[in-house]
Amino acid sequence: MGQTRIVTLLSDFGLRDHYVSAMKGVMLGLNPDLCFVDISHQVPPQDIQSGAFILGQAYPCFPADTIHLAVVDPGVGTARKAIVIYAAAQFFVGPDNGIFTWILNREESFTVYEITADHYFRKPVSSTFHGRDIFAPVAGWISRNIPLQQVGPVCDNPVRLKLPALTRVRDALIQATVLAVDGFGNLVTNLKPEDLPVYSAPGTRNCKMLISQKEITAFRRTFSEGAPGELFVVPGSSEYLEIVMRNGSAAAALNAAPGALIGVVLS
Amino acid sequence: MGQTRIVTLLSDFGLRDHYVSAMKGVMLGLNPDLCFVDISHQVPPQDIQSGAFILGQAYPCFPADTIHLAVVDPGVGTARKAIVIYAAAQFFVGPDNGIFTWILNREESFTVYEITADHYFRKPVSSTFHGRDIFAPVAGWISRNIPLQQVGPVCDNPVRLKLPALTRVRDALIQATVLAVDGFGNLVTNLKPEDLPVYSAPGTRNCKMLISQKEITAFRRTFSEGAPGELFVVPGSSEYLEIVMRNGSAAAALNAAPGALIGVVLS
Amino acid sequence: MGQTRIVTLLSDFGLRDHYVSAMKGVMLGLNPDLCFVDISHQVPPQDIQSGAFILGQAYPCFPADTIHLAVVDPGVGTARKAIVIYAAAQFFVGPDNGIFTWILNREESFTVYEITADHYFRKPVSSTFHGRDIFAPVAGWISRNIPLQQVGPVCDNPVRLKLPALTRVRDALIQATVLAVDGFGNLVTNLKPEDLPVYSAPGTRNCKMLISQKEITAFRRTFSEGAPGELFVVPGSSEYLEIVMRNGSAAAALNAAPGALIGVVLS
Repeated sequence: MGQTRIVTLLSDFGLRDHYVSAMKGVMLGLNPDLCFVDISHQVPPQDIQSGAFILGQAYPCFPADTIHLAVVDPGVGTARKAIVIYAAAQFFVGPDNGIFTWILNREESFTVYEITADHYFRKPVSSTFHGRDIFAPVAGWISRNIPLQQVGPVCDNPVRLKLPALTRVRDALIQATVLAVDGFGNLVTNLKPEDLPVYSAPGTRNCKMLISQKEITAFRRTFSEGAPGELFVVPGSSEYLEIVMRNGSAAAALNAAPGALIGVVLS
Repeated sequence: MGQTRIVTLLSDFGLRDHYVSAMKGVMLGLNPDLCFVDISHQVPPQDIQSGAFILGQAYPCFPADTIHLAVVDPGVGTARKAIVIYAAAQFFVGPDNGIFTWILNREESFTVYEITADHYFRKPVSSTFHGRDIFAPVAGWISRNIPLQQVGPVCDNPVRLKLPALTRVRDALIQATVLAVDGFGNLVTNLKPEDLPVYSAPGTRNCKMLISQKEITAFRRTFSEGAPGELFVVPGSSEYLEIVMRNGSAAAALNAAPGALIGVVLS
Repeated sequence: MGQTRIVTLLSDFGLRDHYVSAMKGVMLGLNPDLCFVDISHQVPPQDIQSGAFILGQAYPCFPADTIHLAVVDPGVGTARKAIVIYAAAQFFVGPDNGIFTWILNREESFTVYEITADHYFRKPVSSTFHGRDIFAPVAGWISRNIPLQQVGPVCDNPVRLKLPALTRVRDALIQATVLAVDGFGNLVTNLKPEDLPVYSAPGTRNCKMLISQKEITAFRRTFSEGAPGELFVVPGSSEYLEIVMRNGSAAAALNAAPGALIGVVLS
């Protein structure tokens, strides 16, 4: 085998139980030369949308040949497919339930394989823990460079979550959405700096945001420009604008969660 | 040294403080070629029973030669022994307080060594953190393949926790127990599928479970067969039956914790 | 590159989001041969003092050449410097905001470099996530053994937090402070055993501690000597005395937090 292979893990398993380590042990039994990186195991239980967002933010930071194992799998034991995606020169292993939506939406080309070759599985396959019995061993075999067509046939139309779109109600009004809330309480919106003249053409038009019956009128470049206790907008470390509070939680101040609607009024 | 050695860690140290990293740093100082896998550091404080269960679930997934470091150690600084167990071609390092009960109960053969060779210890040995000063360095030296008899003499009768047994009160009544509650709120019982005709001989006898003054009458094969909000039984990913709620917490619904009694009535 | 390099990480990012894994992915892209050890990502948000204490406790356990990446960075995007410190034959990378205070205070010699060489940065540099775009890539390059003067000029007077000092009010009265509270609820004080005759010269003088309007009169050597429910003092695994409760939380019992004052009365 020779070279160390990077394997990331994302799940809703939490860190208290043995589940994450069971998957790692199974992979190490197939290939002792792995470098594990935990992306998150604190995805809210069964919350595919949150898991998909976190994975979509993380994978572009990883080098080619990285294997990403993503197990947020409320449909375990049902007819939902198990898949491997090859995209951006990286590998993605998990259930076909939308967890890979951000990769599929961002990458122009990808190939999806349905996992059917059960001789790679850990036996007996439990009906409740495919992470350990199907996804981890398949990831372990991929780390040993088996050709992907050996895991199963190419398949079309992998499941994609419907992500909230920006709606331009009229020239002066945009309806946007909170995509995610991070651990600091920052609200990641689906607005990009280029969507708002205040960032893309400063000085041309005024702008305000309405969310949770509050009005946000401060648009800044960095956290440090925010006044204490002030809610303001800042370009985040993803490609999106974020509603934040310096050294505080915008989510708590606005009582806002993923899916919350934002009105943007230009004048 | 050459080959990467797998070392797992389990403790009640939590992830906020420096304790876990201190143990890893000490081991890396002895052998830079280690692959760490955290099994759990969120064992409830001083809860040997929970830690023992989690470790017992995890170790069978790991390959031969893995070293398991388990430090749930309310007796640190007392006369409790420090031990190394060789079992299932793996190594287990920690206090002799029952934390290895599931390994001792499951494996037919094992050898236990008392750790007495204090030239392996980190000096000075603190009275409160043997994880860093005794167990981690001994694990580090084991990863360098010292013969186990060098850590100390073989010892008999390692401490075992008393695990709850199934009681067949009469032919039609079994008293069982909740062994563990996982992070999803699933209740792991000490019943196996072969204990209940509904799984071992379908169609022969009816079955119901009584727990927390509720009656459970649904026995299913997979999570996905459960109706929303329904409490039901499913064969878990361990060898045991679990009481679960699909996309919900059975533990919350039943207000049940490890040790809760379960009555099984056959008819 | 060849040899595996140890990189530790400390932050206030938590474990739910992609932030920590993004930093690891960036480093692995520069050097695939890294061994990551997470010291903590649960530093309370923006709490440099707590982060500095945890890092100060952890680094002495690591071998030479370890690279420590510490990102508790409320001033991200402001004029605060980015620095690398070489001390104790280890490397420390992060913001110049006091997070390295314990290293600077403990080590007699060290060299501090300001990070200015932006060709090492990940582009574009976000204004809110220098961990990913500046500190991680610089740590990655250091792991490839670039000479430190290539990251920027030597700089003087790195920021140090003011740590609480012991005050000897008069011969019989010392004012001390709680430095930190760990996850068990143990209170780490800034008193050392040599500060109290009860440890340094047993039998010579009596001693009591006053904290949160309670009196502590039990001074013990190990946890196991404590009676159930008793608050007592014990030499901790750091160099400091700790106020603890066996199998319980002294912090909860005393409602005490870092910074809480302690009076020590000798008689």
